[in-house]
Amino acid sequence: MFDFNYFTPTKVVFGKNAESHVAELIKEFGGTKILIHYGGGSVVRSGLLKRVTDILDAAGIGYVTLGGAVPNPHLGLVYEGIELCKKEKVDFLLAVGGGSAIDSAKAIGYGLANEGDVWDFYDYKRTAEGCVPVGVILTIAATGSEMSDSSVITKEEGLVKRGYSSDYGRPKFAIMNPELTMTLPDYQTACGCTDIMMHTMERYFTQGGNMEITDALAEGLLRTVKKNAVILRDNPKDYDARAEVMWAGSLAHNGLTGCGNDGGDWMTHKLEHELGGLYDVAHGAGLAAIWGSWARYVFKNCLPRFKRFALNVMEVENAGSDEDIALRGIEAMEDFYRSINMPTNLRELGVTATEDDLVLMAHKCAVGVGGEMGSARVLNEQDMLNIYRASM
Amino acid sequence: MFDFNYFTPTKVVFGKNAESHVAELIKEFGGTKILIHYGGGSVVRSGLLKRVTDILDAAGIGYVTLGGAVPNPHLGLVYEGIELCKKEKVDFLLAVGGGSAIDSAKAIGYGLANEGDVWDFYDYKRTAEGCVPVGVILTIAATGSEMSDSSVITKEEGLVKRGYSSDYGRPKFAIMNPELTMTLPDYQTACGCTDIMMHTMERYFTQGGNMEITDALAEGLLRTVKKNAVILRDNPKDYDARAEVMWAGSLAHNGLTGCGNDGGDWMTHKLEHELGGLYDVAHGAGLAAIWGSWARYVFKNCLPRFKRFALNVMEVENAGSDEDIALRGIEAMEDFYRSINMPTNLRELGVTATEDDLVLMAHKCAVGVGGEMGSARVLNEQDMLNIYRASM
Repeated sequence: MFDFNYFTPTKVVFGKNAESHVAELIKEFGGTKILIHYGGGSVVRSGLLKRVTDILDAAGIGYVTLGGAVPNPHLGLVYEGIELCKKEKVDFLLAVGGGSAIDSAKAIGYGLANEGDVWDFYDYKRTAEGCVPVGVILTIAATGSEMSDSSVITKEEGLVKRGYSSDYGRPKFAIMNPELTMTLPDYQTACGCTDIMMHTMERYFTQGGNMEITDALAEGLLRTVKKNAVILRDNPKDYDARAEVMWAGSLAHNGLTGCGNDGGDWMTHKLEHELGGLYDVAHGAGLAAIWGSWARYVFKNCLPRFKRFALNVMEVENAGSDEDIALRGIEAMEDFYRSINMPTNLRELGVTATEDDLVLMAHKCAVGVGGEMGSARVLNEQDMLNIYRASM
Repeated sequence: MFDFNYFTPTKVVFGKNAESHVAELIKEFGGTKILIHYGGGSVVRSGLLKRVTDILDAAGIGYVTLGGAVPNPHLGLVYEGIELCKKEKVDFLLAVGGGSAIDSAKAIGYGLANEGDVWDFYDYKRTAEGCVPVGVILTIAATGSEMSDSSVITKEEGLVKRGYSSDYGRPKFAIMNPELTMTLPDYQTACGCTDIMMHTMERYFTQGGNMEITDALAEGLLRTVKKNAVILRDNPKDYDARAEVMWAGSLAHNGLTGCGNDGGDWMTHKLEHELGGLYDVAHGAGLAAIWGSWARYVFKNCLPRFKRFALNVMEVENAGSDEDIALRGIEAMEDFYRSINMPTNLRELGVTATEDDLVLMAHKCAVGVGGEMGSARVLNEQDMLNIYRASM
């Protein structure tokens, strides 16, 4: 068991019509002039943006808006947001959307609260000493950014995708109304469920002695998402299932399911990041396409955890050797992915990669992690290439 | 499923020697002159207080000390603390101890940040509009006050025990070093485990549709404490078991295990409060002594939850009627209490109550809850008397 810090200051307001509290929450955290930051047109088309601006108007809170946050949100828009906020004397950032809008808002917040180029933080050159407060109205359950300390931004030049984590960036509040996620395309819902589960699985497959209570919480969360992902496949408007997945998304990545572990593995995420850099794939689908190959490559080095996962999460029969049980757990997970129309290899993901592509991705991945990384099994560049090859 | 708010801003620093961070944490939250508030002499005898003051001295942070917080902490000491802090211009309260010191520090904080008599808040006459920040070095895993919004104070005159809850009172940080709990008497350790489990059980036995994820987290937490309470009975110095119980204590009462429910039942706590008012009994032991009688009295009205508890927490065999399974779950819980030397009735608790005593307690309890209360089953004064009688 390792020492740990736990810090989840985000005030969560969860339930039907939760967005009606947005003005009082902004006032509680001192906002007087707001940037409403969002992604594509769905928050406009759905009427959510209008509802929010009506509430702010009625409360006498001034605001400006900035749309356009795309998946893998761009540094250019962050710069634009910083300039806009300086000009308009914005003191509070309201992200309306999913991880893209939230991550982009966090970056704008760092840029406003610190001198110099905000990219420095993402480029590991220095650390932020503050962040303009961020609030969230969540419309996609996936990244957990609504309670997390992390933000991932992509610099357009060279498509450099980098994450920065700081407690300063944790949102002040998160408004979570499961109804707002009901109109998501099925594919995006399934991608979200995959991402949510992976945030906890990355913390679960470790060599470090996870706490029993952390394992129990992690396994309970994973079983819940697994079950409700299937319910949502058949009935996307199921409020309770939407709520289970939405709340799981926050808990999966706010730190709760990693307390006491060695920091986690995170190699599936790293391998997927390179995939996302080279091809236009959804993050959750990319994770599903890689995970099985990663798991088969590493499970013998982390057998007790894979056995436990098979029994307590995938609920396979406790029979045969530990390796048998672990392998049946991996197979059951891949079956689950298929059941919610997620890919289990690059082909199903729609990616046709040449051997040169695989070599390039493995090299970039290895450089990105400083040579080697992993907890279930430490992977070097050759290992990464082997996993990419196996995922074809 | 009910809407919910979730707010757990306390920064947790968990692990060996965690108290070494106390000065930096106090500075982070703006403390310049500190009241160190503690209970009995154990923090003095163990050398913890000296260690803390040495750290503050080295960091140039001024402080005054106030000991004497007793179980069911007294209003008189709260008043004394308020006067002392005003005189000494204290701007940060550091509780070193368990629930008594923390609850008392919260009350001092309310008294300092608000005009008028602090008892008004506990007497439901008005609500606090702030609290001087409180930090915690935890030495007893039990009440969960280190992350909770609640504080229970007893007014000496008439022995009126009242709780007040406000987000303002949530501690800014909680330092949790499991080693600090290793010297607790076995009885107090077992009482703590009982209290921790009950905080989640009160949230679990409801008529309201708990979320699946909340149930999964609650059941995982309960199984973890149940297992580790037995380990600590046999080996009180087991670091990992101390850590499991300590972290469970915070999660059991910070709100996590109640998300989406109807607010919980809480009648076992209410029935025990009257017991604690009339007799000198430890809170955890009092809960154990009452719970079985309460459970047998209400379980038919809340059968699905009791069945689920029996299967998923007590892990009894899934055979026989639902009532059989539920009853075997209650029996298994009582067996667990006995296994850690907790009482399962008033006799074993060491209480010899007359019929008049029972009538008086039932009456006071009914008045205290405004006539009737409960979720698993709504109880009136006669029900309360019946449960007290059954617990003899």
